[in-house]
Amino acid sequence: MSSLINTQIKPFKAQAYHNGQFVTVTDNDLKGKWSVVFFYPADFSFVCPTELGDLADHYEEFKKMGVEIYSVSTDTHFVHKGWHDASDTIKKIQFPMIGDPSGKISRDFEVLIEEDGVALRGTFVINPEGQIKLYEIHDLGIGRSATELIRKVQAAQYVASHKGQVCPASWQPGSETLAPSLDLVGKI
Amino acid sequence: MSSLINTQIKPFKAQAYHNGQFVTVTDNDLKGKWSVVFFYPADFSFVCPTELGDLADHYEEFKKMGVEIYSVSTDTHFVHKGWHDASDTIKKIQFPMIGDPSGKISRDFEVLIEEDGVALRGTFVINPEGQIKLYEIHDLGIGRSATELIRKVQAAQYVASHKGQVCPASWQPGSETLAPSLDLVGKI
Amino acid sequence: MSSLINTQIKPFKAQAYHNGQFVTVTDNDLKGKWSVVFFYPADFSFVCPTELGDLADHYEEFKKMGVEIYSVSTDTHFVHKGWHDASDTIKKIQFPMIGDPSGKISRDFEVLIEEDGVALRGTFVINPEGQIKLYEIHDLGIGRSATELIRKVQAAQYVASHKGQVCPASWQPGSETLAPSLDLVGKI
Amino acid sequence: MSSLINTQIKPFKAQAYHNGQFVTVTDNDLKGKWSVVFFYPADFSFVCPTELGDLADHYEEFKKMGVEIYSVSTDTHFVHKGWHDASDTIKKIQFPMIGDPSGKISRDFEVLIEEDGVALRGTFVINPEGQIKLYEIHDLGIGRSATELIRKVQAAQYVASHKGQVCPASWQPGSETLAPSLDLVGKI
Amino acid sequence: MSSLINTQIKPFKAQAYHNGQFVTVTDNDLKGKWSVVFFYPADFSFVCPTELGDLADHYEEFKKMGVEIYSVSTDTHFVHKGWHDASDTIKKIQFPMIGDPSGKISRDFEVLIEEDGVALRGTFVINPEGQIKLYEIHDLGIGRSATELIRKVQAAQYVASHKGQVCPASWQPGSETLAPSLDLVGKI
Amino acid sequence: MSSLINTQIKPFKAQAYHNGQFVTVTDNDLKGKWSVVFFYPADFSFVCPTELGDLADHYEEFKKMGVEIYSVSTDTHFVHKGWHDASDTIKKIQFPMIGDPSGKISRDFEVLIEEDGVALRGTFVINPEGQIKLYEIHDLGIGRSATELIRKVQAAQYVASHKGQVCPASWQPGSETLAPSLDLVGKI
Amino acid sequence: MSSLINTQIKPFKAQAYHNGQFVTVTDNDLKGKWSVVFFYPADFSFVCPTELGDLADHYEEFKKMGVEIYSVSTDTHFVHKGWHDASDTIKKIQFPMIGDPSGKISRDFEVLIEEDGVALRGTFVINPEGQIKLYEIHDLGIGRSATELIRKVQAAQYVASHKGQVCPASWQPGSETLAPSLDLVGKI
Amino acid sequence: MSSLINTQIKPFKAQAYHNGQFVTVTDNDLKGKWSVVFFYPADFSFVCPTELGDLADHYEEFKKMGVEIYSVSTDTHFVHKGWHDASDTIKKIQFPMIGDPSGKISRDFEVLIEEDGVALRGTFVINPEGQIKLYEIHDLGIGRSATELIRKVQAAQYVASHKGQVCPASWQPGSETLAPSLDLVGKI
Amino acid sequence: MSSLINTQIKPFKAQAYHNGQFVTVTDNDLKGKWSVVFFYPADFSFVCPTELGDLADHYEEFKKMGVEIYSVSTDTHFVHKGWHDASDTIKKIQFPMIGDPSGKISRDFEVLIEEDGVALRGTFVINPEGQIKLYEIHDLGIGRSATELIRKVQAAQYVASHKGQVCPASWQPGSETLAPSLDLVGKI
Amino acid sequence: MSSLINTQIKPFKAQAYHNGQFVTVTDNDLKGKWSVVFFYPADFSFVCPTELGDLADHYEEFKKMGVEIYSVSTDTHFVHKGWHDASDTIKKIQFPMIGDPSGKISRDFEVLIEEDGVALRGTFVINPEGQIKLYEIHDLGIGRSATELIRKVQAAQYVASHKGQVCPASWQPGSETLAPSLDLVGKI
Repeated sequence: MSSLINTQIKPFKAQAYHNGQFVTVTDNDLKGKWSVVFFYPADFSFVCPTELGDLADHYEEFKKMGVEIYSVSTDTHFVHKGWHDASDTIKKIQFPMIGDPSGKISRDFEVLIEEDGVALRGTFVINPEGQIKLYEIHDLGIGRSATELIRKVQAAQYVASHKGQVCPASWQPGSETLAPSLDLVGKI
Repeated sequence: MSSLINTQIKPFKAQAYHNGQFVTVTDNDLKGKWSVVFFYPADFSFVCPTELGDLADHYEEFKKMGVEIYSVSTDTHFVHKGWHDASDTIKKIQFPMIGDPSGKISRDFEVLIEEDGVALRGTFVINPEGQIKLYEIHDLGIGRSATELIRKVQAAQYVASHKGQVCPASWQPGSETLAPSLDLVGKI
Repeated sequence: MSSLINTQIKPFKAQAYHNGQFVTVTDNDLKGKWSVVFFYPADFSFVCPTELGDLADHYEEFKKMGVEIYSVSTDTHFVHKGWHDASDTIKKIQFPMIGDPSGKISRDFEVLIEEDGVALRGTFVINPEGQIKLYEIHDLGIGRSATELIRKVQAAQYVASHKGQVCPASWQPGSETLAPSLDLVGKI
Repeated sequence: MSSLINTQIKPFKAQAYHNGQFVTVTDNDLKGKWSVVFFYPADFSFVCPTELGDLADHYEEFKKMGVEIYSVSTDTHFVHKGWHDASDTIKKIQFPMIGDPSGKISRDFEVLIEEDGVALRGTFVINPEGQIKLYEIHDLGIGRSATELIRKVQAAQYVASHKGQVCPASWQPGSETLAPSLDLVGKI
Repeated sequence: MSSLINTQIKPFKAQAYHNGQFVTVTDNDLKGKWSVVFFYPADFSFVCPTELGDLADHYEEFKKMGVEIYSVSTDTHFVHKGWHDASDTIKKIQFPMIGDPSGKISRDFEVLIEEDGVALRGTFVINPEGQIKLYEIHDLGIGRSATELIRKVQAAQYVASHKGQVCPASWQPGSETLAPSLDLVGKI
Repeated sequence: MSSLINTQIKPFKAQAYHNGQFVTVTDNDLKGKWSVVFFYPADFSFVCPTELGDLADHYEEFKKMGVEIYSVSTDTHFVHKGWHDASDTIKKIQFPMIGDPSGKISRDFEVLIEEDGVALRGTFVINPEGQIKLYEIHDLGIGRSATELIRKVQAAQYVASHKGQVCPASWQPGSETLAPSLDLVGKI
Repeated sequence: MSSLINTQIKPFKAQAYHNGQFVTVTDNDLKGKWSVVFFYPADFSFVCPTELGDLADHYEEFKKMGVEIYSVSTDTHFVHKGWHDASDTIKKIQFPMIGDPSGKISRDFEVLIEEDGVALRGTFVINPEGQIKLYEIHDLGIGRSATELIRKVQAAQYVASHKGQVCPASWQPGSETLAPSLDLVGKI
Repeated sequence: MSSLINTQIKPFKAQAYHNGQFVTVTDNDLKGKWSVVFFYPADFSFVCPTELGDLADHYEEFKKMGVEIYSVSTDTHFVHKGWHDASDTIKKIQFPMIGDPSGKISRDFEVLIEEDGVALRGTFVINPEGQIKLYEIHDLGIGRSATELIRKVQAAQYVASHKGQVCPASWQPGSETLAPSLDLVGKI
Repeated sequence: MSSLINTQIKPFKAQAYHNGQFVTVTDNDLKGKWSVVFFYPADFSFVCPTELGDLADHYEEFKKMGVEIYSVSTDTHFVHKGWHDASDTIKKIQFPMIGDPSGKISRDFEVLIEEDGVALRGTFVINPEGQIKLYEIHDLGIGRSATELIRKVQAAQYVASHKGQVCPASWQPGSETLAPSLDLVGKI
Repeated sequence: MSSLINTQIKPFKAQAYHNGQFVTVTDNDLKGKWSVVFFYPADFSFVCPTELGDLADHYEEFKKMGVEIYSVSTDTHFVHKGWHDASDTIKKIQFPMIGDPSGKISRDFEVLIEEDGVALRGTFVINPEGQIKLYEIHDLGIGRSATELIRKVQAAQYVASHKGQVCPASWQPGSETLAPSLDLVGKI
């Protein structure tokens, strides 16, 4: 088995709840800009709202970076609306909430737990060509951080736009980077 | 294909360079404590030293949390010693540097690029039972952050020791957590 | 392909929302009494509430007949609670609402639409031995009738308890029935 | 295994007894109007006549709804004539009685009991495009009701002719129906 | 493919109409005496009654020879009773009329026309050990003769009881037979 | 396995002894007229001559009916000549005696006993289109009757030339036949 | 494919004509003495009698050498008797004439022409252990010589009884032979 | 398995020692004339020289009959030369001595003993069309006779040039032969 | 399994360290001149430097013979540079040092120890057509000799340029050679 | 495919010519001492004698080192004797000359050229446990050197008896060797 890095995302077609509407989202909507696909286990369960609220609070920053966010669970879009209506935290969400009741998208991103029918906490950063550039997967109880995600997306975007320059650890925008050179081998 | 979350690590036996010695490391050495397995592409190449130096600088913190770090590349343990001798950055490393020239370990953690014979940048957090609790995989150029890794390990440890309490997003030690309760459904 | 009539129900284990609690339901809970398993497509969608409300309104009659009802959709038990809180119709339901997010139960009863991840409107009457005695399946838009279901369950129970007596069409409790006899062949 | 809902009926060609004649019936005869295909186990046996007589008594209503009825057993058309001649109940039948001695039609509708060579009591409602819209299957002894069947056909016809309007439970012609709207989600 | 001559009849269990009763007939009932199994296409069709009537008229002779007759069609035993009631010719039959609605017996004797679900006109003579000693199969329209059958059964019985004596063509009881001898080779 | 009735005879090419000559006979020679193919076990053995002599005695009648006879055994045509020379009975034969030493023809008509290399006593009546219309197979010792065969061929010819009229049991030329009509169902 | 030399003859059981009797011959009858198995195409055909007569004329010599001869064709033993009666040449034969109508023996010795059902002219010399020591096979028209066969059998017998002495070409009884020795290598 | 009689020889290409030269011999060299292919086990071993010397002594006769001889062993052509130089017997050989070190030719003529890597004593007579007309195979110690071989080749040539005349046993040139005729059947 | 002699080298593409540069080497670079491919287990391990230093010391001679040397280990080109920088012995190397971290080249030359991920000590001499003309493989501890390799390459080159002349054992440039001739067979 | 290094030699049993005798050699004879197995293409061909003579001239040295030599070609042991008698060079050989006419040994050492039936020039050094420690294979024309072989065997024996000491390139007995130590990594 090999990783999903640099693989093309698989085709999909799904219903999402977005700004009070039911809309159709396909893999083509992810092309031409950077995207974050953010899986979580289940609507109306306990910890997920805080992760999603954390994302909602940083949504403006992602938009400025030219990044769209798609949250995905195996609930239907009907349920997403029901939850959006019922929860104050979820009400803050302005990005599309994709319904994946057949589990196809979760299965294609290899985060579906088949026997439970729900997704693990998996975050995928996808470039404008539709290729997965980085991802992280957590066991069900372990929450993710929106600020860490922002740093990673920035690093991925920087590497993409500065071919030949390498991105050292814990890089932040504005940090100095290293242009690779034979003289550096064994020197750093 | 499903994810590696909660799977048992596969048996392995490898030579490592550790504190001036050549030692044998097996999967059994990872049992009984938390571990981080940290893959990187190649010794003597450019960006890796900064990531590994970042880890080396935070090694004391990991030790306090009861966590051992194992760096892994498909180079031999001979080469790890050669690099350790040659590079000021690598010289700081005090954790075991595993040699995986056959690629077996990298393949089992699904980070091996078969046609290149090198590993992607993959980080795996493993609990004392030898189960993978979270991981992240980056495309070759995108660096990782030791401080983010510390937060994640702390969250994983907290969840493991507080069954029934859930760990919200961006949690830091000392933050308030939520005990799950039916009344919370749809309320947060 | 043959029908499901007289086949044993397949083993399952699921979470349900029942009277303000989350409870576990297995195939063993259906043994020892008559059961109705009632599939519908999705929580928070349009027509289902009326069907489920119709069932809720006749629940007392089913109880008197010694029949338990289990409603099933591919939503989670969390969502069932969320819907029960939100909808006045659903609030009337006192029978267990099973969550089948993995689709296993729906697939085993052959009502799952794989590409949509939701169930058709299927009703199954199961005897105390766990065998399916009758069922009906409707395309998504076509509603079912609780009173018709009551008549069918009564007929099935009557046949089960009066072996050797046959149950003519449109039979209602108290109607005359026919005991089979060679003299009747070709006479009625 | 998935259900037969919305599948196309399989091609068939059979001999039937109809109004004193032997006629050929094919799957094409079912196209262009609504049809009910009504399986029963065996001519000259006990309970079947009452079910078939119940249907015969309501035949006029089905005709007004534009519905043709086809009864099917694995007996030959010769036997259907013999039974029609011999039985006062069967003599009332004016719809085609299909002979299926090879069991092909019963097998294609998944109601054939292979080891007995007879069909279960299965009723199928088929739309003018030849697609199965609803069906019910009973174990051998449990009779069906013509009036329930009429309600179901009416519901199926109503849904077919009022796309976008949904048909609530226990609907009867003239009842109010619900036009789906996003505002209804979670409200009924 | 080889012929059925000298093969053991396959096990079967069937319902038959016999002297006003429904009885069970199995392959074991054919053991211990000579039997004729007489297949025909369909009850209530045209030519079969004359063949069956011809057999019924000679039934006394068969009984005297210690032979039981079993007629078989793919109709049910219910239909056999219905036909026996309705037809003056069939009413004369005193031997068991086996119902083979699943076609198993007809298929095992290789006379079933699968696509029609009916049997060809096949006659099988079976010895007390359950082995087929001779058979004839006719296309559907070509009738059989009871007197010819009697001659054949007598010849088969004679050969069975006079091992070492051979039965010349057109042999009738009382005719001279030939005891085989080396001297006869090439002389007759 | 199904019967050979209405199957096309398989192609063959064989040497025969006919009227003092060695001639080639193929399946094409059987087309365009009615044929009887008459298998027997072995030349120079005991009972066969009487059967073949019986046929030879009635050969004129078959000719008048437009029927050719072909006798077949697994002996060579050389042996047929040798036998014809040696035996007074066989000397009467005027029809072609086919040699089938490879057993191909006997195998194709399913009368070959593979382990013995000889044929059972099988008689096949073939119409001018090369289709088998009736056949009978006897165990080795049980002789056949030429007069019965004549009756059967006449019946087969009558049915072939009077489509729509059916041939009752024991029919003889000149007997009355039944034209099928719906009114006869269940009446005879 | 390898040759038959030194292979064990395959088990067989056959009927033979021998000195006016029909006898059973099996592979076991060939054990304990030297045997010649002599295949030919067909009784009553042209050239075979001369070959067989040639053998018959030398039979006394074979007997003196302790050799039994078995002639084999795919004709039956009945035909062998018929031919023995009819032909002056064949009448001289005193060895067993095996009938192989199923072709099993001919096939096991690899001389059967499957499409013709007859054997090639094959001669096999078999030692008392049942192993084939030499054989020759001729196309159908090419006759064999009994005197050559006698020389070969003598050579085979001589080699068998004088292990370690080798039998030069064209050896005749009484000729000098060579005892193998290292000194002879390259010298003769 | 069937015999090699009348099969086409398989293509081959080999080195041979012939009249002081190393030459290439292929299957095509055998076309257009009669050939004898003469296998023997091994150069420099004991008995072979006498057989080969016997052939060499009769070579002139074969030449007059238009026959070429090819001796074959699994030794190389180098070894054939070495033996020709060393042995007085072999020095007489004027026909091509083929080297078959890979065993391909011996395997194709089915005389190779795989586990020993040497050939049995096999002689094959091949007609100008490249078809094998007769062959004999001896176990290792049993020598062949050149004069017998000459008789057989003459018989094969005679049959080939006198189609329709048959060659009786022990035929020698000038002997009378039999023209086949129907009158001879059973007479000789 | 057969040897690699005279097989074409398999296509490859690799990174090498050569004279202070990272360069790409493919199988095509080996065409058009003689090449030595020299595998060894691992950089920075013990004995390899002396073998490689031995080769480096004789590099001038190889160049004069028109031969390029390629050393190969499963280390990366980065590591080759690191070792070149660190080791006085390796610093002398002027030929390309190929990195084969995926093991593809080592596997194609059949020297990879799969479970260790390192190569055996294998030396391959390849002609300008890319065919392997000789090779030697040693167990891990057994060193090779550059002077022996020079002699072998010279012999291979001599044979290639003097077709028809053979190269005796221990041949050195300038030694007398043997032109093959039939007269030499068995004489030297 | 992997190399033969450290594999166990396969079982074999062969005839050899040794000191004027024919003897049997098996794989067991190679156990308990060091062995050289020396393959060459063919006796009586051109260049082989010089290689073999070179070996014969150094045989005394090999004996002193405790090494037995076995030469192997696909010729028979008869031919080896013939060649030994004929050639002055070969006459010097005192070690066993194995005959491998079936090619089994050559095939097991992967030096057989199947289509030619001869072996490549392959030399194998085998330790007393029967494991192959080094080998070299040359294309047919390229000769080997006995003195190089002696050096290699000495190196292999030295490594075997001095575990933990490594044998540098071009090592000769008496040379200084290196004991491996971590301090040497990257220093030589």
